[in-house]
Amino acid sequence: MKFIDKLLAASRKNNSLLCIGLDPDPELISGVDFLDFNRAIIDATFDLVCAYKPNLAFYEAMGIDGLKLLVKTVEHIPKYIPVIADGKRGDIGNTAKAYARALFSTFGFDAATVNPYLGTDCIEPFTSYTEKGVFILCRTSNPGALDFQNLRSPEGVPLYELVARKALEWNTNGNIGLVMGATYPEELKSVRQLCPDMPLLIPGIGPQGGDLASAVRYGTDKNGEKAIIVAARQVLYAASGSDFAAAARKAAMELKGKINRLVSEIGRLLSQQP
Amino acid sequence: MKFIDKLLAASRKNNSLLCIGLDPDPELISGVDFLDFNRAIIDATFDLVCAYKPNLAFYEAMGIDGLKLLVKTVEHIPKYIPVIADGKRGDIGNTAKAYARALFSTFGFDAATVNPYLGTDCIEPFTSYTEKGVFILCRTSNPGALDFQNLRSPEGVPLYELVARKALEWNTNGNIGLVMGATYPEELKSVRQLCPDMPLLIPGIGPQGGDLASAVRYGTDKNGEKAIIVAARQVLYAASGSDFAAAARKAAMELKGKINRLVSEIGRLLSQQP
Repeated sequence: MKFIDKLLAASRKNNSLLCIGLDPDPELISGVDFLDFNRAIIDATFDLVCAYKPNLAFYEAMGIDGLKLLVKTVEHIPKYIPVIADGKRGDIGNTAKAYARALFSTFGFDAATVNPYLGTDCIEPFTSYTEKGVFILCRTSNPGALDFQNLRSPEGVPLYELVARKALEWNTNGNIGLVMGATYPEELKSVRQLCPDMPLLIPGIGPQGGDLASAVRYGTDKNGEKAIIVAARQVLYAASGSDFAAAARKAAMELKGKINRLVSEIGRLLSQQP
Repeated sequence: MKFIDKLLAASRKNNSLLCIGLDPDPELISGVDFLDFNRAIIDATFDLVCAYKPNLAFYEAMGIDGLKLLVKTVEHIPKYIPVIADGKRGDIGNTAKAYARALFSTFGFDAATVNPYLGTDCIEPFTSYTEKGVFILCRTSNPGALDFQNLRSPEGVPLYELVARKALEWNTNGNIGLVMGATYPEELKSVRQLCPDMPLLIPGIGPQGGDLASAVRYGTDKNGEKAIIVAARQVLYAASGSDFAAAARKAAMELKGKINRLVSEIGRLLSQQP
């Protein structure tokens, strides 16, 4: 099954655009076994999400044990829910091929995030896995995004928009999406207009301060779908005691509810337009 | 010891600017145990190099066993030779911190390559390890580098040069270097002029077709040092039979010799200038 179909099926079944970032961070919670932690988070939230997104950095920081944790965490996720490996990989042709093999074949993820800085031959080895999803970093959610991503060409086109345009060109297998930070709503709006059919992975609504209403309004497609709204810290670490899983469920439910109310409102507004 | 001092000490001890990329690729050699393979390559070449550079993609493609292979490979490298983790990581602040912890603390590498697309907060967590080296991708060696890295600002400054300028700004701990592909000699020349003291990691002289003479001429600093000339496939897979290690030594010796002759010639030319 193609990634986009798996994503839409999970999103419809759970009536959710919420994606939970499974980022075990010893700096934010301590005294837990992270496999128990991740499993409890998954058990408490799997009916509330459209996808899970482990960020590989947190697992690699724990060394080989961390990678074992990653594998066991993914095994625990119900098969109908897509898992996006957030590794932001990017390398030249034959090396990108090895990364794609690692993420899609060896570890079996449904999708991966990739960095566009190296251009075409860094993307193609990923997109050639036609059943898998490839999310290209476009406008990231962090403050440093301003350093280079807004660089304007002599024609006045900013770099992130050039990336979005290239992504359209590269998308011959229909499996490309874009990473668009919720912290830059105007950019999100313009990229959604440029790429009306692509799934957008939207981090940044939590501690980073992105506005949820704009993320939903500008991130969804014409059917109110294909926006993957990421929450990690505000769900995972909603409580730091033994009630963390119940607190995570409560936080995820509230977020999912807010998102769905926003989607309905936008739909109502659009249907009232002449 | 600071990375740059370790690099210069190894480079002077072995009289070499050659860095061997330890990239075990099952597509290029088969029927070998890759730990035996890597150890044999290291045994055959450690007195000929200034550094080793495993590209993490090839290890990740083998899953958890590949990461065990990586750890054991690094353990086999003599302690005085710096090891550069080529992972081209790049993520937002708190995640970049986890990547830096993974590479520098958990796995204990001496240096790492990072991707600049996310800007300042993706770089700082790496450079804050003041004893470690941080090589920022500037102009990569691949054809796709042209897609974005040459994008010119309205003032006519290409993106890769903006990255080099930012690198100078960020370099308050004196531990930043740049990745400059040998396939683009003019760009290498201009970046070396802009950053006269930074170590430059220069891939692309092998199957990618970069010119070795230009790499040495434009890549070295005023003392004929601080250029780290990378060779992987043309050394590792110089022969595909059981003589692979002897063939690798021969290939590495020839390359090291060529590089040193080029360094001497350039030194002679410079000393003859009025």
